[in-house]
Amino acid sequence: MDWPRGLEGLCYGGDYNPEQWPEEVWKEDVELMRRAGVNLVTVGVFSWARLEPSPGVHDFGWLDRALGLLHEGGIRVGLATPTASPPPWFGLAHPDALNVAADGTRLTHGSRDTYCVSAPAYRDASVRIATALAERYREHPALAMWHVHNEYGTRCHCDHAAAAFRTWLEARHGTLEALNDAWTTSFWGQHYSAWEQVMPPRATQYLPNPSQTLDFRRFLSDAMLACFREQKAVLRELSPDVPVTTNFVFGDWVPVDQRRWAREVDLVAIDHYPAADPPAETAFGADLARHWAGGEPWLLMEQAAVTYTGPRMAAKRPGEITRLSLSHIARGSRGAMFFQWRASRGGAELWHSGMVPHAGPDSRIFREVCELGALLPALEEATRAPVEAEAAVLWDTEAGWALQSPGLPSTELSYPEAVRQAHRVLYRHGVTADFAHPSDDLSAYGFVLVPSLYLISDADAENLRRYVEGGGTLVVSFLSGVADEHARVRTGGYPGALRDLLGIRVEEFHPLPPDAAIPLSVPGGGPLRAGIRPVARNGTGPLPGERAPHDTGTFWSEHLHLEGAEALARYAVPDAPGPRAPRTDAPGTGAALAGRPAITRHRHGGGTALYLSTRLTDGAYARLLGLEPVPVERVRRGGWLFTINHGDEEQEGTGGLRLSPGGYAVQKVQPAV
Amino acid sequence: MDWPRGLEGLCYGGDYNPEQWPEEVWKEDVELMRRAGVNLVTVGVFSWARLEPSPGVHDFGWLDRALGLLHEGGIRVGLATPTASPPPWFGLAHPDALNVAADGTRLTHGSRDTYCVSAPAYRDASVRIATALAERYREHPALAMWHVHNEYGTRCHCDHAAAAFRTWLEARHGTLEALNDAWTTSFWGQHYSAWEQVMPPRATQYLPNPSQTLDFRRFLSDAMLACFREQKAVLRELSPDVPVTTNFVFGDWVPVDQRRWAREVDLVAIDHYPAADPPAETAFGADLARHWAGGEPWLLMEQAAVTYTGPRMAAKRPGEITRLSLSHIARGSRGAMFFQWRASRGGAELWHSGMVPHAGPDSRIFREVCELGALLPALEEATRAPVEAEAAVLWDTEAGWALQSPGLPSTELSYPEAVRQAHRVLYRHGVTADFAHPSDDLSAYGFVLVPSLYLISDADAENLRRYVEGGGTLVVSFLSGVADEHARVRTGGYPGALRDLLGIRVEEFHPLPPDAAIPLSVPGGGPLRAGIRPVARNGTGPLPGERAPHDTGTFWSEHLHLEGAEALARYAVPDAPGPRAPRTDAPGTGAALAGRPAITRHRHGGGTALYLSTRLTDGAYARLLGLEPVPVERVRRGGWLFTINHGDEEQEGTGGLRLSPGGYAVQKVQPAV
Amino acid sequence: MDWPRGLEGLCYGGDYNPEQWPEEVWKEDVELMRRAGVNLVTVGVFSWARLEPSPGVHDFGWLDRALGLLHEGGIRVGLATPTASPPPWFGLAHPDALNVAADGTRLTHGSRDTYCVSAPAYRDASVRIATALAERYREHPALAMWHVHNEYGTRCHCDHAAAAFRTWLEARHGTLEALNDAWTTSFWGQHYSAWEQVMPPRATQYLPNPSQTLDFRRFLSDAMLACFREQKAVLRELSPDVPVTTNFVFGDWVPVDQRRWAREVDLVAIDHYPAADPPAETAFGADLARHWAGGEPWLLMEQAAVTYTGPRMAAKRPGEITRLSLSHIARGSRGAMFFQWRASRGGAELWHSGMVPHAGPDSRIFREVCELGALLPALEEATRAPVEAEAAVLWDTEAGWALQSPGLPSTELSYPEAVRQAHRVLYRHGVTADFAHPSDDLSAYGFVLVPSLYLISDADAENLRRYVEGGGTLVVSFLSGVADEHARVRTGGYPGALRDLLGIRVEEFHPLPPDAAIPLSVPGGGPLRAGIRPVARNGTGPLPGERAPHDTGTFWSEHLHLEGAEALARYAVPDAPGPRAPRTDAPGTGAALAGRPAITRHRHGGGTALYLSTRLTDGAYARLLGLEPVPVERVRRGGWLFTINHGDEEQEGTGGLRLSPGGYAVQKVQPAV
Repeated sequence: MDWPRGLEGLCYGGDYNPEQWPEEVWKEDVELMRRAGVNLVTVGVFSWARLEPSPGVHDFGWLDRALGLLHEGGIRVGLATPTASPPPWFGLAHPDALNVAADGTRLTHGSRDTYCVSAPAYRDASVRIATALAERYREHPALAMWHVHNEYGTRCHCDHAAAAFRTWLEARHGTLEALNDAWTTSFWGQHYSAWEQVMPPRATQYLPNPSQTLDFRRFLSDAMLACFREQKAVLRELSPDVPVTTNFVFGDWVPVDQRRWAREVDLVAIDHYPAADPPAETAFGADLARHWAGGEPWLLMEQAAVTYTGPRMAAKRPGEITRLSLSHIARGSRGAMFFQWRASRGGAELWHSGMVPHAGPDSRIFREVCELGALLPALEEATRAPVEAEAAVLWDTEAGWALQSPGLPSTELSYPEAVRQAHRVLYRHGVTADFAHPSDDLSAYGFVLVPSLYLISDADAENLRRYVEGGGTLVVSFLSGVADEHARVRTGGYPGALRDLLGIRVEEFHPLPPDAAIPLSVPGGGPLRAGIRPVARNGTGPLPGERAPHDTGTFWSEHLHLEGAEALARYAVPDAPGPRAPRTDAPGTGAALAGRPAITRHRHGGGTALYLSTRLTDGAYARLLGLEPVPVERVRRGGWLFTINHGDEEQEGTGGLRLSPGGYAVQKVQPAV
Repeated sequence: MDWPRGLEGLCYGGDYNPEQWPEEVWKEDVELMRRAGVNLVTVGVFSWARLEPSPGVHDFGWLDRALGLLHEGGIRVGLATPTASPPPWFGLAHPDALNVAADGTRLTHGSRDTYCVSAPAYRDASVRIATALAERYREHPALAMWHVHNEYGTRCHCDHAAAAFRTWLEARHGTLEALNDAWTTSFWGQHYSAWEQVMPPRATQYLPNPSQTLDFRRFLSDAMLACFREQKAVLRELSPDVPVTTNFVFGDWVPVDQRRWAREVDLVAIDHYPAADPPAETAFGADLARHWAGGEPWLLMEQAAVTYTGPRMAAKRPGEITRLSLSHIARGSRGAMFFQWRASRGGAELWHSGMVPHAGPDSRIFREVCELGALLPALEEATRAPVEAEAAVLWDTEAGWALQSPGLPSTELSYPEAVRQAHRVLYRHGVTADFAHPSDDLSAYGFVLVPSLYLISDADAENLRRYVEGGGTLVVSFLSGVADEHARVRTGGYPGALRDLLGIRVEEFHPLPPDAAIPLSVPGGGPLRAGIRPVARNGTGPLPGERAPHDTGTFWSEHLHLEGAEALARYAVPDAPGPRAPRTDAPGTGAALAGRPAITRHRHGGGTALYLSTRLTDGAYARLLGLEPVPVERVRRGGWLFTINHGDEEQEGTGGLRLSPGGYAVQKVQPAV
Repeated sequence: MDWPRGLEGLCYGGDYNPEQWPEEVWKEDVELMRRAGVNLVTVGVFSWARLEPSPGVHDFGWLDRALGLLHEGGIRVGLATPTASPPPWFGLAHPDALNVAADGTRLTHGSRDTYCVSAPAYRDASVRIATALAERYREHPALAMWHVHNEYGTRCHCDHAAAAFRTWLEARHGTLEALNDAWTTSFWGQHYSAWEQVMPPRATQYLPNPSQTLDFRRFLSDAMLACFREQKAVLRELSPDVPVTTNFVFGDWVPVDQRRWAREVDLVAIDHYPAADPPAETAFGADLARHWAGGEPWLLMEQAAVTYTGPRMAAKRPGEITRLSLSHIARGSRGAMFFQWRASRGGAELWHSGMVPHAGPDSRIFREVCELGALLPALEEATRAPVEAEAAVLWDTEAGWALQSPGLPSTELSYPEAVRQAHRVLYRHGVTADFAHPSDDLSAYGFVLVPSLYLISDADAENLRRYVEGGGTLVVSFLSGVADEHARVRTGGYPGALRDLLGIRVEEFHPLPPDAAIPLSVPGGGPLRAGIRPVARNGTGPLPGERAPHDTGTFWSEHLHLEGAEALARYAVPDAPGPRAPRTDAPGTGAALAGRPAITRHRHGGGTALYLSTRLTDGAYARLLGLEPVPVERVRRGGWLFTINHGDEEQEGTGGLRLSPGGYAVQKVQPAV
């Protein structure tokens, strides 16, 4: 994926919704944009109701004027198709095209995203408005990019969706018998004898079928992708040289397989709203975007000038807007965009932040926005070489979906949390990581972490085997490999497809209660060490605050047999329980595992396969890998080194550099060995 | 509003539902009522199904007999129209008149309040039964009052409601373009091109529009008020001399603007069920009722003989029934009424208390009921003069509704809690307060507290300015004044409409996590003091249990600029976090504000405008105002002083009086200076 | 109920679902079953879709082959009718026969139990498939039992259900007036004037009627029972000698009155999944099953090889499968069956355990399964005599349902928890208990515990009185006897129907907040003692960890008058509240009760009636009854003694026996005196 022409330089700007403001404000907008260094804005994301106020009647005048002003100001435009929010008239004209919840509730307009992507009326209307836009603006000099839709991520359980789901299933499984087999419909007597019996997972009496819910997620992703492709075809035909993208969004709820979608866009773009731990989450999301983009540049299409923590919004710390933008750019983004340019004064997100906040340009936020805009041009040179990663973390969206099924051994499992921990351990210990799919060529990586990869195909398991045979180090966490691509458990012992590679056989899971912690003992004593590259660079003593000789496993444990592997750590006898600890005879405290292997190492071919049957602390996990904490964020690209100090204390950088609290540096250095 | 004829004396009694009991019980009821001193009962609130067992067929015989017995016993009757609970046959005959939830669920009878106030069939049937009742009983000698309906407070999202909502909106906004502007429908592309597109806030995909939900609340209030007025017109016409009321109920969920309704009733009546902190909540509700009544007398129509805390009911403490009744009366109630006379033995509220509990008259509750009944006549003289209030707290129902929107800067905001704190601070420190609306003449008050008044019109903001100019002291808490009457944010800096008056400009909100507390430092040292009247009456030392030199701000903080105001307190550097405190680099801990103003004072005209950008403890708030704790409740009316000791320790009263634990006094004293 | 012929010996096996596996697995299954000592499997529970793949088209071939293999292997079969899971085609053919939630949501197939038992189409189809099965297999040599349906426990609110509910109500109440009276429909104006107005408890505006919800539960139980009887009639007619059963399931949500159902089955069978405290819960469930079986043998039809705690599954401890099976058998089960034979690899419960786990036969679980299978034959002799119980605990399903109503004095009430505590106190202190219904003959029991028996008929109250008069000791806990069989409160003072028997009158409930504990004082000092048989067998000192002189009451307290009873303990003044304790003036802390009776004793006739107006700790409860802890489980049957050590420490058994941690013994001993 080459970076598209017309988007040269680092992109800077945000969503611009002129229709929210009187036209007299627009001139000030362009002026302020110029002051801030803005060079790209996204226009029209939710403008359908203004562009087509009644069916077939278009009003492009206001948009003509807005684009004109932007172009005069030298601001490029990513013009959006507005299909993420059909106008109110649409649902009244086509009630069958509004989406339906699992319990049969037909939704009403009034928010956004009220449509069923499988409804013909929605598909037709979407193509028509995209065509009208493309016909009018395909040669507009401000047009730099098409932005299709917004944050694809809806679901629907209506009859249109059911019919489309069946068509999709027939293409995937071929025959109804193959579907019955893949879904194990023999359980609870759900065997289908005709295609019409197959349904989306609508409200039912008790647990749904996990293979059905997984396939429905896959279908949703493909159904939305079909919408995207339909619009893209129109835009491509009418303006062959303008790149087309859409903005991916993160979240457990998102039924989009971004990696597959990435093949269909001209550039990968993400909306990113880190919450609890913004620096680590920024690195996580940015590395994931780079993975979707196949290691190529991508674009941070939305970020916010404040942090949304869930219960409340939180002001960003001084300089944090710049630091997090810089982190995104260091990790591959070709710019830093925001939602939105000017904070709205009304509507559902009237308290969402803007580059120009409610307080106006005389504000810390706008001043920091201007500083960032001034900084970006100087960064370009440093961003030409690829990001250098030493390790990889596996990420498989479908495996994550499968871990959202009800009826799993624990209701507390979270695939994103498991992956975030693996990535965070590397992030906090100075290792830049790529994400990779289990089917990717992994041979370039010194080691590869595999957190809770519940579901894996035979082919992908074979790929992991090849990686280890070729000398790689694979670090697999519990609950990996246990299911096939239909979410059926692989029998004969866990971790199923990875058993031989890991040289172990697990016969039982022992999930742990929240307050249980099983001590781990290292045979022969000494600290926990995998003995793998990368070794610790300086020193081996326990880290401050970590009880090296008393590492514990939490959350999960397993009854594991060595079948070729050796034990790096074993479960020890729990301490006498404290006042709040569960009784040792309470279900699931795992006392039965005392003496059994907890962490194993298997030499296989030229490489090593490690297995973690329990959850370690971040510190113990890092120590196992021979890593030491690095208190600043560091990313290397060719001869350039990005260093960011997100913390409150001065830190030492590279080459004698001192980084003040919140400081950063982009330096030309010797390439890493 | 003159106190209606026929309701002379202090009213005492409760809801009486003779139809729940065999007629042989009725005689005992009247006998016990006389023993208890009851002089008014509310009859017929839920009697529709017994009065009109099938459509158009009436059965008044039982009610004739019950009213006859009551009259013989000298008990006055507030006769209710039974429209809060249509009979089961009603919903079967008119399924379109049953209310519909936001998700489209049509409710079924079986509880109470199953109707849509916008459904013609419900309106017609309501007027018919009210007419039939009025025709039969308008000259009944026991009839002292009409009690329309019960606790208005339903909502409906059906098509009748949608049509009525549109009519209401057209009257409010005039044109569709004005509505689009007021609601900022340009956000997320919800621009309406025809009235039929406008809907109640039905189930939609994501966040609804906050201006729509606010207007829907306003509409619900007016739609129910129209029902009330329709019935009132019938009753007035048929019995011009009988006062008409309805009973207001408290609660976040209640879509009733009681202040506006109060203009339509002949007397204000409230149902009041204090829960967590009964004495303070009693004062709060009673003061609010007096506000709705325009400072005139009102009536406590329902209270309970036990306390409902939510998870469980709790017995009232010895004497508590009397103390809380006395507090209501001291604050303006012309009596003390209960729900209900005799605890029911079945039905949904079979565990609701009664003046005659399940245990019967040989019970502490009934004995206390008798004691209270015996006490009331002696109180009348002391209740003739108006309540004397030294301060006011602003209350605006619509501002509270606006603070229930999703998408606010914090999900933890609660308007009632903010107002309760302001009122409680005065209550616990010996200051009797009125509630006032932002449009009210405030010139009589020494100071006026303005807790989190999110929404304010230009005219009301101007009224507050006039108050300060005239010498008043206004104490405004965070998140006030930020939105206009359509719930649109006022741009240019917070607190929007109050910026100039307060001499400040806030550019960013920094809501705080639950366990964060930012120390406040007072420039020049010394305790936190606004330096306003009323000054502390005796002593200035720190209160026991309060860390005067280490006051902290919690819940909220702001990035605030002085623009004419001075800083009374500034944010200081937080202490090192404790083991459970958040990391200082976690989002939203507000460390960035160190040294910035937290509490400000602005001299304006002849007065003072204070601003609190964070939440203080009750003690610090009081200290700021120069108040000292007063361990008893005190209310002055003319030369009379009510003193109530709600606590467990003996306290000193006025004039050398000693109040035993739980004791009270009503004394003739010198008028306050 | 004689134990059925054909089920001789202790039954051992589980649910076997061959249709989940390729036929090549079946031979291994039978081989492994033989290795494990399996002699009975349940086949066909969810096989409808495979037996009748389209309406009226049957495919019995696979079942013929599976039963043939089992018979060849000497394995008996409990053949199930598959009506708990109609095939997908059923709901498409009969959408009116799918069940409807209270809010009107019509469910869809995809799980199990999607049908309305009142829908004619479901009833007809059920009888047809049961008939077809019976006709084909009634003489099959493997057939040992008919297993109708599975875990009856659905509910439906559709129009079919409504019609059936009305018919049931008419049979129960006779006239509409009687129904209006029983339900107290005069409350909130719900008086019915025609039967068609009576509805299942569908979604309504606010609290539903508790008598209606109780009767609806009763109806559901009877409606499902009618289904069972219909199928049983078919099976009985076609195979008169084959016993018929169904498997009862535990849980608050289950609308089945198992005691009444037990009269209709040829043997009582239960599915039992203890969770938080497996040994005590096993004893509880097993004793309840014995109660349902009228003291006769019964069958543990399902248990699991792991423990499901709710949030997560937990491995069973070494030997726990055997210990819990043994406990079931000691308490009357004629065997130990599992769900399921082989853990499924797909479907909703793919993570449910099996006798053959995912890991296969080379596993701890399967080895323990084989050990248990080898042990069972040796146990038979010890299980011939009845279980010997010294005490009884009352259990009334309907009383429990009534305690699930909304609007009770506390939302925290749980009938199962109250009964579990009473049973657990006996279990942990060496007393084997029967459960009994309030109408049962209790004269054989030394004492009878009556935990929170909210609802009681006059006749049952009279039965309790007769028990005490005859010399029995009745121990009644708070909230007993307060309501009649229609869930109407008995007026005049609590505990209503038991007032005279207990010699007390309670006038008010004082439920306590979770962190409140009222100290209890024993008049005259000394430990809390009821002075009843059984006296403590050895020693009287306080137990380790129990503060004998400072027992407290929690959760509940009452304002109680002695009317013939004496006070064994009184409420004392609470200690000064700790930092987390509520203020003593907060609602519901019960300080008002200081000095009032808390625990009372009434000598009546030849016996004693104790009353507990508060919740004691397990230790204090036992001490009151004169019991001492016994650290092992013990059950006597004739001259046989079962002893099980569920703990982690060695314990002393009977006759000098030492029981290692996890050990057990079945000994021939002298019969108990």
